[in-house]
Amino acid sequence: MPRGRLITLEGGEGAGKSTQIRALGAALNARGIAVTTTREPGGTPQAETIRGLLLDGEPGTFDTITQALLHYAARREHLRQTILPALEEGTWVLSDRFSDSTMAYQGYGAGLGRDLIDALHSIAIGTFKPDMTVILDLTADQSQARLEGRGEDRNAYEKLDQAFHDRVRAGFLDIARREPDRCVVVDATLPEAAVTAAAFEAIEDRLGLP
Amino acid sequence: MPRGRLITLEGGEGAGKSTQIRALGAALNARGIAVTTTREPGGTPQAETIRGLLLDGEPGTFDTITQALLHYAARREHLRQTILPALEEGTWVLSDRFSDSTMAYQGYGAGLGRDLIDALHSIAIGTFKPDMTVILDLTADQSQARLEGRGEDRNAYEKLDQAFHDRVRAGFLDIARREPDRCVVVDATLPEAAVTAAAFEAIEDRLGLP
Repeated sequence: MPRGRLITLEGGEGAGKSTQIRALGAALNARGIAVTTTREPGGTPQAETIRGLLLDGEPGTFDTITQALLHYAARREHLRQTILPALEEGTWVLSDRFSDSTMAYQGYGAGLGRDLIDALHSIAIGTFKPDMTVILDLTADQSQARLEGRGEDRNAYEKLDQAFHDRVRAGFLDIARREPDRCVVVDATLPEAAVTAAAFEAIEDRLGLP
Repeated sequence: MPRGRLITLEGGEGAGKSTQIRALGAALNARGIAVTTTREPGGTPQAETIRGLLLDGEPGTFDTITQALLHYAARREHLRQTILPALEEGTWVLSDRFSDSTMAYQGYGAGLGRDLIDALHSIAIGTFKPDMTVILDLTADQSQARLEGRGEDRNAYEKLDQAFHDRVRAGFLDIARREPDRCVVVDATLPEAAVTAAAFEAIEDRLGLP
């Protein structure tokens, strides 16, 4: 059984990551590929507890460095207990957010910088990276409009201001420029089916499918 | 108002840290010094939640690197929200465990090594160190005998085996050898009052008291 692949979906709030994960999971299943879908922060019982700490509070409950430490603690457990065992069984894993979110939110959005996040990544999960990352791109304005349309309670990150989300978006685009072999950027404002088609085509091109 | 001082008490399980913190707090109060006593992991509501994650489970719930990340996430909040504000008000802080515990337990006991813990310390709390550290020294055998005498449920660290606790003890002693200006080692098997007297004398010698 060949090892599975980890594909991460990244992007700002309201970019459609969870919708696209469901659609891409179904499309991969249709090609005979076993898929596990998961999310960050979370993906194990302990990591979901850490998710609650990070997302349920007001902005400022934790400072930015503490957030980064907690995200990477949760990520290490997610990787160790959920992602790696699935990959070893030959299952493909689709994750709603992964390490690029910490780089974009804490590194770029909150200004900790790339070096600190890189150092933390190295301590927490070494040189591990996803096999491929789909960045769903939309502006902070578009993100806000979608969140307003949903009408749900906002988590600690969704409550941050537009300037923060502008920096997060620029961060995701910079990550994609630095790692073009791993990352593909898809316009998240396209119709859902067109986003799925673009992402699926990129996955097929880059990772190969049966 | 001069800045307060942070004194940390370190040592293995059953070394008498919480007893000595109470006694040293009373002795400092008697010299007119305002004292806050606190503990790690914990010391803020969020950090106490992390404490529950770390201590309530079985050994192996988290792997060692995740433990170190969580301890430092809790420590940053403890420092930021509890310790630094107290020090700035001129209050002295006595903490039951601090960064040396992560070095001794994860760095030496679990074998992560000094460099990884130093790197994590630098990310999480920069160059911050306690003003003084009292290491209450006892052997793993003596520690086990005290835990058995208490008859309480054991936390995840207390459940680890003697070889682990031997490495932790050796770690604390090595830390003291490397930082003799900050650390003093006191024989924890002396009578309680003699331990308090030795620790108090060291505090008076090194930090000066009114």
